[in-house]
Amino acid sequence: MSELRGACIFGQSGGPTSVINASAAGVIQEALKHGCITKVYGAAHGIKGVLTENFYDMSQEDAKELDLLKTTPSSALGSVRYKLKSEEEDDTDYKRLVEVFKKYDIRYFFYNGGNDSMDTCNKVSKYMQKVGYECRVMGVPKTIDNDLWGTDHCPGYGSAAKYVATSTMEIYHDARVYDTGMVTVLEIMGRNAGWLTAATALAAYKGNGPDLIYLPELPFDMDQFLEDTSRIYKANGKVIVAVSEGAKDKDGTYVAEMGANLSKDSFGHAQLGGTASILANIVKNKIAKKVRGIEFSLLQRCAAHVGSLTDINEAYSAGQAAVRYAVEGKTDFMVAFERIPGAEYKCEIKLVNLTDVANTEKKIPREWINKEGNGLTDDFIKYALPLIQGESVLPLEEGLPRFAKLKKVLGTK
Amino acid sequence: MSELRGACIFGQSGGPTSVINASAAGVIQEALKHGCITKVYGAAHGIKGVLTENFYDMSQEDAKELDLLKTTPSSALGSVRYKLKSEEEDDTDYKRLVEVFKKYDIRYFFYNGGNDSMDTCNKVSKYMQKVGYECRVMGVPKTIDNDLWGTDHCPGYGSAAKYVATSTMEIYHDARVYDTGMVTVLEIMGRNAGWLTAATALAAYKGNGPDLIYLPELPFDMDQFLEDTSRIYKANGKVIVAVSEGAKDKDGTYVAEMGANLSKDSFGHAQLGGTASILANIVKNKIAKKVRGIEFSLLQRCAAHVGSLTDINEAYSAGQAAVRYAVEGKTDFMVAFERIPGAEYKCEIKLVNLTDVANTEKKIPREWINKEGNGLTDDFIKYALPLIQGESVLPLEEGLPRFAKLKKVLGTK
Repeated sequence: MSELRGACIFGQSGGPTSVINASAAGVIQEALKHGCITKVYGAAHGIKGVLTENFYDMSQEDAKELDLLKTTPSSALGSVRYKLKSEEEDDTDYKRLVEVFKKYDIRYFFYNGGNDSMDTCNKVSKYMQKVGYECRVMGVPKTIDNDLWGTDHCPGYGSAAKYVATSTMEIYHDARVYDTGMVTVLEIMGRNAGWLTAATALAAYKGNGPDLIYLPELPFDMDQFLEDTSRIYKANGKVIVAVSEGAKDKDGTYVAEMGANLSKDSFGHAQLGGTASILANIVKNKIAKKVRGIEFSLLQRCAAHVGSLTDINEAYSAGQAAVRYAVEGKTDFMVAFERIPGAEYKCEIKLVNLTDVANTEKKIPREWINKEGNGLTDDFIKYALPLIQGESVLPLEEGLPRFAKLKKVLGTK
Repeated sequence: MSELRGACIFGQSGGPTSVINASAAGVIQEALKHGCITKVYGAAHGIKGVLTENFYDMSQEDAKELDLLKTTPSSALGSVRYKLKSEEEDDTDYKRLVEVFKKYDIRYFFYNGGNDSMDTCNKVSKYMQKVGYECRVMGVPKTIDNDLWGTDHCPGYGSAAKYVATSTMEIYHDARVYDTGMVTVLEIMGRNAGWLTAATALAAYKGNGPDLIYLPELPFDMDQFLEDTSRIYKANGKVIVAVSEGAKDKDGTYVAEMGANLSKDSFGHAQLGGTASILANIVKNKIAKKVRGIEFSLLQRCAAHVGSLTDINEAYSAGQAAVRYAVEGKTDFMVAFERIPGAEYKCEIKLVNLTDVANTEKKIPREWINKEGNGLTDDFIKYALPLIQGESVLPLEEGLPRFAKLKKVLGTK
């Protein structure tokens, strides 16, 4: 191990979560402790802030506010969806990065995000190696989609899953107060992987969940959906369906795109909208008079008020570990979690190669989905339940959350 | 005061809230304490359960489960939307009620709900008086809409307001993570009164709220809305708009009905949907590329996980007070809250005549809405802030809510 002196820069990228700032706190608070890290910069809007020299000096922030980051949802530094082109295609950004890194003597690069962000992180890492600029690069995982390869699960998922399961249980109660029939369709985030939609199975495990769950891992079969829904409606009068926003049929057409063809209102107008509202309309035309389509929307990824303490702590330690490992000499890795077998839930931190992680999506194994393709097995419950344990305690002022307020003082050389 | 011996029956009616079961717990636990109340029945689906002799013997329930009602959302006994016809029009239901009351010796009738439910309660009360059947009738207020006349506020409102304000603060953070423009439109419940939509002003008071708030108390002016939104969008790049589901123009046309005329997608298809999605589509066509319409939907009325402790306690004491007053000899009233002037929030319970309450809606006073008609004044904040104080502590099992499970043993004579 050789000591590497220099500044570090940290960026957040991709869709926010309710705990991505806990990872930020982990990185920043840990980095501030190490003498070899001469400056701690926080990039405004991820890689874009690095390219434009738009980053903050995190040592200027109050310690109390940095602590509050642990329970502040969304990306406090600002996020970005910016895909670096391959170096062969266009190396402008890469050259600029080296320029900025040299100018500020940046020797540590920490990047917090999902698949695309790990791709960015990987590209930065490989380019710096190639041009011989010594910089330790570490990815910090984050995504409510839980679809990063090489890790048992991703920070952000546990809290989103806890929110989705809790809200589903509450909706379950609300959706059966009348003695009339009703079908409720819940739309949950996840374009290609159904982890978050599957979290509604935790509500079902508690007896207050959906009757049917459709994940994007399997082709969505409209006839089967209508048959399933109709059968349960006839038997119980109440049906709750959870469906992923990414549900698509065997030809790859998203349900969300089917509106124009399948669903007409009584005036013959086409109904367009999200997956839930389209399915709700179809059910209304074919099965039940009373139907509700509910989209959890942004709420599911920013609801810090019902965060999982396990998730927050893990998000924080992922950030912390990224710094520690980098200081120890590690580079070109993403911090990941490995579950230790045993009755009690325990995860250890490990490192996975950025190359292996970048752009690889982890989906729900087929054997965790029931044979009918409309529910989850116990294996999923065993996997997911530990991740939602413990409750975040949100600091409050006058009965409302007190979120971190950063000064955001621009960094200097 | 004369002691009246006999059974009591309690019913829940109208849209559920996250604390209506706290009132149920208040009524039931108090009623079970009084020797003069010989049986405590809980009607399945409100007045419908009374008419059909479908009610439960609440003494059969476990004490622990009755306690859990305090934090269980929605109507545990089942709710109903059933409007009693006037006696002159059709007295069948009234005669049937007397029959059932006599059969089970029901001498106390407690009814928990909003405007329509208080109308039911009032009609039952007046009929029993008219036919000389001695029965003490008390209304227990409940509504997230907060629009009952004669009371400072309604149980159910504080918790819904806390949920709406908290979620709005979280969405505020989520909606500004990218450095690109974005307009977010939040749709909040309240058909004729804007109390709950106004609760987003509490988020604004904390610096994390909407830029614009449109209540159904004033006619919705589409041009003004577009002008307001466009102005803020140009200045800040980010706009959050809160709008009541009941927003309607000066001719009485709901925004939700305007879809077909005003909003076309790029294929010329008409966009139909809720108020938020319609406004979002219009904004997308005229102002900003990135727009999100978010409907809080059922979540806002069943989110027990972020309940106001003040609200829960008041809901409970409203139920309790209804029983105590009835036992003392009072009848034909609704339990209400009167705020005691002073720096510290304090409410006392009072009684208001059912006749005065039935079908009278209380709206937000014009002077609490700003001159421009797109926001609230400090008077509203002073009014609403105390109602969301204190946090409900939801009993959990395995990280998820443990809601009450009632046995629902059918009542016998």
